Amino acid sequence: MNAELIAVGTEILLGDIVNTDAQVISRGLSELGINVYYQTVVGDNPTRLERAIREAKDRADIIITTGGLGPTLDDLTKETLAKVFGKTMALHEPSLAHIKEFFQKIGREMTPNNEKQAWLPEGCTVFENKWGTAPGCGFEAGGKHVLMLPGPPRECTPMWEQCAKPYLYPLAGGCIVSRSVRVMGLGESAMEARLHDLMASMTNPTIAPYAKVSECFARVTAMADTEAEAEQMLTPVVQQVTDLLGADVYGIDVDSLEQVVGDTLRQRGMTLAVAESCTGGLLSKRITDLPGASDYYKGGVCSYTNEVKINLLGVQPDTLAQYGAVSAQTAEQMAAGAAQVFGTDIGVGITGVAGPDPSEGKEVGLVYISVWFQGELITRETRNSLGRDRVRNQAASNALDIIRRKLQGVL
Amino acid sequence: MNAELIAVGTEILLGDIVNTDAQVISRGLSELGINVYYQTVVGDNPTRLERAIREAKDRADIIITTGGLGPTLDDLTKETLAKVFGKTMALHEPSLAHIKEFFQKIGREMTPNNEKQAWLPEGCTVFENKWGTAPGCGFEAGGKHVLMLPGPPRECTPMWEQCAKPYLYPLAGGCIVSRSVRVMGLGESAMEARLHDLMASMTNPTIAPYAKVSECFARVTAMADTEAEAEQMLTPVVQQVTDLLGADVYGIDVDSLEQVVGDTLRQRGMTLAVAESCTGGLLSKRITDLPGASDYYKGGVCSYTNEVKINLLGVQPDTLAQYGAVSAQTAEQMAAGAAQVFGTDIGVGITGVAGPDPSEGKEVGLVYISVWFQGELITRETRNSLGRDRVRNQAASNALDIIRRKLQGVL
Repeated sequence: MNAELIAVGTEILLGDIVNTDAQVISRGLSELGINVYYQTVVGDNPTRLERAIREAKDRADIIITTGGLGPTLDDLTKETLAKVFGKTMALHEPSLAHIKEFFQKIGREMTPNNEKQAWLPEGCTVFENKWGTAPGCGFEAGGKHVLMLPGPPRECTPMWEQCAKPYLYPLAGGCIVSRSVRVMGLGESAMEARLHDLMASMTNPTIAPYAKVSECFARVTAMADTEAEAEQMLTPVVQQVTDLLGADVYGIDVDSLEQVVGDTLRQRGMTLAVAESCTGGLLSKRITDLPGASDYYKGGVCSYTNEVKINLLGVQPDTLAQYGAVSAQTAEQMAAGAAQVFGTDIGVGITGVAGPDPSEGKEVGLVYISVWFQGELITRETRNSLGRDRVRNQAASNALDIIRRKLQGVL
Repeated sequence: MNAELIAVGTEILLGDIVNTDAQVISRGLSELGINVYYQTVVGDNPTRLERAIREAKDRADIIITTGGLGPTLDDLTKETLAKVFGKTMALHEPSLAHIKEFFQKIGREMTPNNEKQAWLPEGCTVFENKWGTAPGCGFEAGGKHVLMLPGPPRECTPMWEQCAKPYLYPLAGGCIVSRSVRVMGLGESAMEARLHDLMASMTNPTIAPYAKVSECFARVTAMADTEAEAEQMLTPVVQQVTDLLGADVYGIDVDSLEQVVGDTLRQRGMTLAVAESCTGGLLSKRITDLPGASDYYKGGVCSYTNEVKINLLGVQPDTLAQYGAVSAQTAEQMAAGAAQVFGTDIGVGITGVAGPDPSEGKEVGLVYISVWFQGELITRETRNSLGRDRVRNQAASNALDIIRRKLQGVL
């Protein structure tokens, strides 16, 4: 079985956006053992789209398109695929109801052009869009399999995972199960070095290292006839990976560091507050990305001036004068201040130079992260010059990493 | 003139990496007025690579390849292009000298297979690689123009900018200019409905609608012989689009709502503080995503409990008891409290139910956004049930939208 991906969208050809859908789908197909021989990007142009589809029909068993399912005149993917594969279009009532409901939910009137999104090739398997309006679908025609997914990554990725991948299982001739061993405090190449011998000795399950912002993970993937069999193959290998990586592993198949920290705090009945300077609310935002964070999170202060540090957090003016706002001493007083003001078990203080310009004569990327943990202060100094976003994200991750290690007793 | 990009690399087809070279080159071609009709990705396989090249030769004036110029056996781009275009390969001595020098510099021995990188199609223009080893090149054959660039982005991007783009100048003969009209307070389909007649009546400039989280934009693109001419064609159409969309337009060619708000505050010497409940720091994070936000942003409080709302922001216990934490009254006291605590011209208060569970018997997605603007209170109630992330992002965007409208005098 081989597949070809066709992304439909002039915005990719203009370089406005990068085709990340192709990466997500290609990785998934690779795990399913389906080869991708070509990825194509074509604009919202009926003639060229048809040419790309005919070419793919000629050389691939499976064609997966992304984009061009929307309500506007230049969204042509469904119509063109239907034409090439001799399918007629029909109104899919449940999808229309879903679109109407979507507009009701967001409190906007549904313009008539939105109905177009509910027209699908007759007899197809509909992929309900729980993340937007345009449904996706899959059908078989003339021995070829065609799948259509929406373009926006926030819709495409979950629809691929939850609808399209399971649709392909019977074609892949097997079942895939993966585990992600999540790591913070170790770079991707250092992780790979530790896992190298084990990786080299394996073909199924496979072990693949991936880098994420401020952290990385190892994905262990097994392929077998049944899910139970794949699970059985995974368990010992995941254990070996975890043993090799030690205390830098913060969880397996967890969503994020904030989730591990949040779940542990909830279990122990502990509470948290934060004081942020250079991260400007990012850590608070990440903590509250999780539903139910109010079980353990009391709140935070973003102190973007010295006055706020003094008046709201109780940082000593002397400390600011002597060591500066970007210092371990200020971070520690912010951490203690947050815990005191909010009356929590744990307080975080973050202060640093996010850039792009230095501050107080201190270099861009210098950040102090302090955690007040039931009376004990743990402080880290970090440096990185990877740009404002990464400096801020790494600082927030370091705060969570300190708390995680304290909670798990590995610090 | 139209171009086709071919990226050569199995790692893209496996989903290990994303094809960012295509974005960089497409954007540059668009600026040069060269249309990109297709982007293709193909693996390190001679048959399929040859098929992709023949296809591109048939439909494009310019073919630009990335990748497959390296020293290993599966680097086949040059050889395959030379075959399809009937060119012979020749050793390019200066490139060989450069490669030898490169290995000397990094203190490694040059293995014999590296010489392969110095073999290029006879008579081509060589693009010296100052960022790695494999040179790129360009040649003309049978009325088609072929350019080859290395795959790694750190080599591809500078070689594209410094060598390939200037190589293409004589061919471009035309120029494209775009403007993005940014909109908040109108959905993509409603925007398209307003622009529909104008869009349908235009071929150059073109108007294309795009959706973003909580907002959307219309891109107006003109093609002409010179930049000045394209600009001249754009101006009246951008004006028509802006007139049709009215006060919902927050800027043209700006990065974000937070940028428009931030720049205006800086110009006027005004200051801002926020009090966030359901958005949990997201608005503060978005404001401080921009360097230099400390010019106008003093800080924020994330109040995740009633005690914090009372003690830090001065919300009246009676108000919380009578109307609840999720109410217009509470939002207004949070907004006024933020402005007072931080001593700013503008204060924001956001309180709502981000979900997934209701709170105080109030439905998920109900959010109150209040802005205290130099003594005046403006409050919005919004409802949307698109999930926690979108509820939070929409709330933060609404706060910025209220401030923007007040600053621009359209509210």
